[in-house]
Parts: sequence; structure tokens; C-alpha cells
Amino acid sequence: MQALELASMPLEWVFGRGDESFIVLSSRIRLARNLAKFPFPWKCDKDSLVEIENLILDKVSTSYMLRNSRALKLEQMDKISRMVLVENHLISPNFAQGEDVGRAVVFDDRGIVSLMLNEEDHLRIQVFLGGLQLHDAWHVAKKVDSELESLDYAFNCERGYLSTCPTNTGTGLRASVMLHIPGIVALGHMGQIVRECNRVGLTVRGMYGEGTPPGGSLFQISNQITLGLAEEELVEKVNSIALGVVEQEHFARERLIKQKGIDFADKVWRSLGIVSCARKLSMKEAMELLSKVRMGTEMKILPEISSGELNRLILDAQAGHVMALSGSGEGKGNRRNDIRYVEAKRAEILRDRLFKFLQHN
Amino acid sequence: MQALELASMPLEWVFGRGDESFIVLSSRIRLARNLAKFPFPWKCDKDSLVEIENLILDKVSTSYMLRNSRALKLEQMDKISRMVLVENHLISPNFAQGEDVGRAVVFDDRGIVSLMLNEEDHLRIQVFLGGLQLHDAWHVAKKVDSELESLDYAFNCERGYLSTCPTNTGTGLRASVMLHIPGIVALGHMGQIVRECNRVGLTVRGMYGEGTPPGGSLFQISNQITLGLAEEELVEKVNSIALGVVEQEHFARERLIKQKGIDFADKVWRSLGIVSCARKLSMKEAMELLSKVRMGTEMKILPEISSGELNRLILDAQAGHVMALSGSGEGKGNRRNDIRYVEAKRAEILRDRLFKFLQHN
Repeated sequence: MQALELASMPLEWVFGRGDESFIVLSSRIRLARNLAKFPFPWKCDKDSLVEIENLILDKVSTSYMLRNSRALKLEQMDKISRMVLVENHLISPNFAQGEDVGRAVVFDDRGIVSLMLNEEDHLRIQVFLGGLQLHDAWHVAKKVDSELESLDYAFNCERGYLSTCPTNTGTGLRASVMLHIPGIVALGHMGQIVRECNRVGLTVRGMYGEGTPPGGSLFQISNQITLGLAEEELVEKVNSIALGVVEQEHFARERLIKQKGIDFADKVWRSLGIVSCARKLSMKEAMELLSKVRMGTEMKILPEISSGELNRLILDAQAGHVMALSGSGEGKGNRRNDIRYVEAKRAEILRDRLFKFLQHN
Repeated sequence: MQALELASMPLEWVFGRGDESFIVLSSRIRLARNLAKFPFPWKCDKDSLVEIENLILDKVSTSYMLRNSRALKLEQMDKISRMVLVENHLISPNFAQGEDVGRAVVFDDRGIVSLMLNEEDHLRIQVFLGGLQLHDAWHVAKKVDSELESLDYAFNCERGYLSTCPTNTGTGLRASVMLHIPGIVALGHMGQIVRECNRVGLTVRGMYGEGTPPGGSLFQISNQITLGLAEEELVEKVNSIALGVVEQEHFARERLIKQKGIDFADKVWRSLGIVSCARKLSMKEAMELLSKVRMGTEMKILPEISSGELNRLILDAQAGHVMALSGSGEGKGNRRNDIRYVEAKRAEILRDRLFKFLQHN
């Protein structure tokens, strides 16, 4: 029940209201903060963790930005709810798997602002918007940060905000965009993009951050270090690189259409056909098919499907969402059966939502 | 115009009215006959070939069985019309490519009885019915043969009907069935079927006879030699083997469904999805997809599609039919472009006919 509710909650970024929302799925700002009075979480005992949690939740209750928010303690969440929150990017995989004590997540009713308590740092503030809206996201994050500042952050005039991992020390800011760039991937130009990004201090990662493989041509671009530049400069750096990549993606697609023509149309139409008919779909295949459908509809080869609808499907195709939406409890049968069950249910969900677009075939 | 007309002509076997018409596409009887007064075609000069042609056509005009037939001389046919007639199994590939002089085809208005004049033999009589109707086909062939017998066939009391190729000497009869046996193929039992057939003097071939590769799990089974058994015995031999193979195919499908379950449903649904959406289809892929759709509908996994509709699609997916139906003339651009054009048109034809069945998805 909880998992279903979490899997069904509206998330602002999913509506795809920002600029270039077919290529830029989301813009995200994350701030790492710690309380001066306590050691970093990994050095805290349980009592301190609980004390930190209470301090932050008290402060949250006075926040205007988080007036319509709810707090969920990790210990209150079952396995599928945790998976759903990871897939929604509201908590990190590490957070979901860690110790329960003193760990909680706070998120507003539109999924724009969220906090993670006692993950790697005492406090992580995150702001998520759809399309390319990094500057707006930064403005929201700044406001939330000001409201919570009286928690007495660990701050050093020379080094800025202190954090558990040195790469987060400084502004504590990570600005990232999630990009859908199948054209660049198809032309084999991804290596070039990665090199360009690294040269200016940015990192390219898979859909679920560090260590996750890219799926369905989705990549996250973010700043590598947070020290040495002002927040606005960091945000602008990621923003301008994102704009450049968007332009390259448009170029790549034009080239593909010119070079491949009917082969290209064939590929995107088949993808829509398969995703509307298949009786089982692995996560990997679902992401690849959704990627082709997304490109096909944006290029007006396929019938119109909104970026909001497609974003929702990217989420709903994830294993946690599939299990939550199909009311599957934990511990039913062995793992192998579960995978087959999820693959069948995933196919059912995608079929139900996409078949209607085939009508205009 | 001629090609389009030939590609649209109704063919009795296509309606699939016989027994087991999902697995047995067609039953065919062919008789090889030569006129005693003339040398075999390959030894005939042009004048003799024309003389033979005229003699047979004169006789045909008095035939009751062929009262609603038309004769087409090879020299009157353009390249695409010839392709269409080969695909309709009314003439052989060799016949279509050979010298024009003295060569003609005769066929009735239901595509049941047809004659080839001056192919390998002076006269080939062919009867085609849908499903497993070999005995009926033989009865029809016998009647046609009797009507034409006064042409004075080359016949020898010991060796029977004489023919160009020794394997046809004897009864001159070839009985064959076209089988769709994807279950047997999927289980890897095809080798066993071939060995069984060979052991009792039958041959297994691809869809278009000698030397053609099997496509879409379609195989022809026919008697290898025509000497040594009475016609009825030859026909019964092929008939009983066909019945056995049909039974094995049903077994194989039951096993597949039990072993594979959802994987099996997934495969046939995807095939229907792809064939209803693709923008280009090679002949090979079209046949594979139609094969899966045929199996899926017969096994009631897919919506109901008649064997008649599916037989028609197997024909209409062939290159000659595609060109004829899409009004493509000869000599448009180079060969590479033509293939791309045919692949696009083939996809369009299949899409138009099969998409409606997706509605019940």
C-alpha cells in the first residue's frame, strides 16, 4: 500500500515542463551539509544519529519551502518502497541499503524538494525540476538551504561547507542534468562527449549515478568537484555544457535521418510495435525501446506522445515501480520466478499505456 | 496491368478450405507427359516446339475441365508477370527464365488446374488444392489427363509414361504437400523428419521446390520417384506421411507451450507487433514473422486470423506480388534501390492487412 502510494506520487520533473524536455529529462541541484556539533555520520553513534535526525526534522517543520512535505523514516519503509524511492531519485541506493537508525527522507508533495538525513552527510538537500531548469532549481535549493541554515552547518571560511567526502567540500553543490542522447550514441560520439566534459571538470554517469550502467541512452552530466567556483558559476558550467550537448544531439538526429531515412523510421516504428505487444520485457530492453520511441515521437516519425507520458513510463518500468503498481508483495517464490513475474508485469504496464498510440499507424 | 491482374487472381488453395489448412497449406499433383511423335523439348527445334504448343492448346480448347481457362504464352509476359506466376506455383523458375518459343501456361479461373507447355516435358499437368486434399487433387488430375490423352502420349508398357528426366518416368506423377511446421523446427526435429521421409522414398524441399531454401518453416514433401507403384499408392504414401507430420507438429506445439509458456506468447505477439509496424521487411524476415503469427493464431494465443488471409499474405509478400500490387514497373533505378523499394512496399502491404488484428491486443 505504501509502495503503491509512493510509486503513484506526482513528481514535478516527470511532467516535462522545462525547456528541451525531450532531451533533458531533468535538472537537479544537490547540496551536502553537515551540522557543526556532530561528527560525520559514519563516525556517529546511534544516539547522535537520532539526535541529528530530530534536530533536522524539527527545523523542517518550521520551513515554508517544505510546508507540504512528509517525512519517512527508513525503518518505516519496506523493501519495495525503498526501491521506489531510489527509482524516483529521492534516496540513493546506498541510503536504501544502509542501517535504519536515524535515517529518514523528507519530500514535498510535488517531488521538487527532498532531503536525505544521515546518508553520507548529515543533510542532503535536493531539488528536481523537468527539462533544462538548472538555474531555477538552484534558486529553490538556495531558499531551502537558507531556511535550514540555523541548524549551524559545519563551515570553514577557507574550505567552505565541510563534508564527509572531500570532493563535496566547498560549495557542497552538485548540479546535474539527465540527458537522453540516442543520436549521439548511434553515431558513436559518446566518447567525445565524455572527454569534453572531463576536460572542463564535469562527469558523465549512467541513469542512477555513480557505477550504474547507461540504459536507453540516458546519461547524467554533473560537476566533479564543488570547490573553487561560486555556486552560480558551477550551475552555469553544467547548464552551458548541457545546452551544447542538446545541440549536438539535434545535429546527430538530423544526420541519422539523412543517412538512414527509412531504416530509421523502421527502427522507431518496430520499437513502438514491440513495446505495445511484448509479453515480457527486461529492464534493459524496455529502456532501449522507450528510448527509440522517445526519439521517434520527438522527430515526428511516430504519433505524438508527450515527454511527460514517456518520463512516467521510464519510472514505471523500473522493477520497484512494477512491483508496487502490480501489488506484488515481498517473498513470493524464489528470485527467478520474481524476475519473470516482473518482466511480464512490466510488459503489461507498457502495453497498456502505449498501445493506443499505435492507432495512428 | 497484366502483372497486377495475375497477382490478384483468386487461387483455390489460398482459401485454405481443406483439412488441417493451418499446417497443410496446399496439396499438389503433377503429371509429366510427352507426345510420342516429338523428341523431348530440349532436343526439339523451334518449329516443333510451336507445333507441340498448338497441338496441346487445340486439345485444351475441347476440354471440359479447362473450360474456364486462359492460355498465356511466355512471350506475352513481362518479367514481373513471370515472377508472379512462379510465386503462384503456376510455372517453374526454369520455365520463367527459359526461351520464349513454344512455351505457354494454361490455368483455370480458380487456379486449380494448370498446364505448362514445353518446360522440361512437353506437358505438365498440375492440380492445386488447399489443406490436405491429395486424393481429391489426384482425381481432378486424372480427369484432366484423360481428356488430353488423345494427344498420343509417349508411353511404354514396361516403363510407363516416358519423360525427359528418368526420375519422372513411370507414372509421371509427383504428389506433394506444403507444410508449415515451425514447432518441429523449433524443437530441432527437422532432421528426423527428413530422414523418415527419405527412408520411404520421399523428398523434403523448401517452399519453391528443388534448390530453394526453406523459409518461414515451410517445407514441401513429395515422392522422389514415380516408378514402381500405382498412382493411388504414391498419393496415399505422401498423404499418410503428411498426416504423421501434422500429428508430430501438434505434439511439438503442445510441448513448446508447456516448456516455454510466456516466452512463446511473447514471441508470437512480438511478431504480430513487428509485422504490423515495420517500415521495411526482407522476404526472409516477412516469412519468419508470418510463420510465428500463423502458429500464434492457430494456437489461439493471437486473435483469430484465417488461414486464407495468411496464405494470401505469404503470396503477397513475395517480390513479384509486391511489385505487381504496388504498380512498380521494370527498370526503375538500380537493383539496390529496387530491393529497398520492395522491402518498404512489402512492409506496407503486411501492415495494412495485419494491423487490424492488433486491436484485440
